Amino acid sequence: MAHILGPLMSAGVTILMTLFYAVTIFRVGALRGKLGVKAPSCSGPPEFERAYRVQMNTLEQMAIVLPLFWVATFYPLLPPIVVPVIGVVWVIGRILYMQAYMANPDKRGPGMAIGMLCTVALLVLAVGGVIRTWLLIS
Amino acid sequence: MAHILGPLMSAGVTILMTLFYAVTIFRVGALRGKLGVKAPSCSGPPEFERAYRVQMNTLEQMAIVLPLFWVATFYPLLPPIVVPVIGVVWVIGRILYMQAYMANPDKRGPGMAIGMLCTVALLVLAVGGVIRTWLLIS
Amino acid sequence: MAHILGPLMSAGVTILMTLFYAVTIFRVGALRGKLGVKAPSCSGPPEFERAYRVQMNTLEQMAIVLPLFWVATFYPLLPPIVVPVIGVVWVIGRILYMQAYMANPDKRGPGMAIGMLCTVALLVLAVGGVIRTWLLIS
Repeated sequence: MAHILGPLMSAGVTILMTLFYAVTIFRVGALRGKLGVKAPSCSGPPEFERAYRVQMNTLEQMAIVLPLFWVATFYPLLPPIVVPVIGVVWVIGRILYMQAYMANPDKRGPGMAIGMLCTVALLVLAVGGVIRTWLLIS
Repeated sequence: MAHILGPLMSAGVTILMTLFYAVTIFRVGALRGKLGVKAPSCSGPPEFERAYRVQMNTLEQMAIVLPLFWVATFYPLLPPIVVPVIGVVWVIGRILYMQAYMANPDKRGPGMAIGMLCTVALLVLAVGGVIRTWLLIS
Repeated sequence: MAHILGPLMSAGVTILMTLFYAVTIFRVGALRGKLGVKAPSCSGPPEFERAYRVQMNTLEQMAIVLPLFWVATFYPLLPPIVVPVIGVVWVIGRILYMQAYMANPDKRGPGMAIGMLCTVALLVLAVGGVIRTWLLIS
């Protein structure tokens, strides 16, 4: 059952991650209208540029987190609930990061730190899971 | 057979998506040469900036579409042909978006709307598929 | 065994790819501090803008390479070692690209060429693998 449950929970968390990322994109779009930043420009008032950076930074982080998240899901080192929970904590960290960055970019540290801790945890679990599977089959 | 056919068709559509995205990247590279926009600059004549935004926007959308597309593929709610077809319509929407944006960014609405409808459809199918599987195994 | 070994090796290489991409992100962050480029700005001294472009270009390439890499892994056309090896060569090409770009953007050609060759090889293997599987099941 664990081999079905792990990927299923990770699939649910993946949907959550893409929803959060969609929120950061919508925010940029809404600010384009509100502040009169016409496409294709990506420069404008600080509020717009902050929203744009939050969106871009989330995209950059997702390119690391999603692959590690799925490697750690398919080659589990710990019980299958662990990886999805880390994914949820990552989303919470990104929400904090977004709120802090919009208020004041200098305050983005804590949210960024939670995201990084989750990324490191996923990296350790992914590496450990691949090595463990390697040892099991060889 | 459906459980083999769905992922296989989605794999084919995934190749199509990456090919379309590669086209948007090549266009930026070609305009760099033609319009004399030397790397690392990403500013330049409107034609270059439009091509760059089309490329970036496609990347941003893919970060949402590809994960949802594969969750919806692996946890199918409807017959396995549905998700790949939505993926193909998404690519068609992006082609319309690219053509319109290059001509006039204000005309990018219809292509963007098709892409968004496909994304929402994939989101609904992914959420529905995960819930359905959850109910099946519990 | 091959059907277990292929994905396992590709999972290991995927971790390597995300680690390389993380290096390009850390470099941008470090240069932000060193050169005093405060977020959300992405403009600054040439050294910063080069590091930022290397990071962005790696992200753009990963959006093509990772999906093709995994399609080629799951629908193998050749022995399972081939796709992971191409992934490793891609990372080596990106390292060369990064080093050259930081020294002089005009010298980025060779590293970029290695990356592109790997991408084309993955594309051919992915298309071939999907077609082969299609023929096998029909």
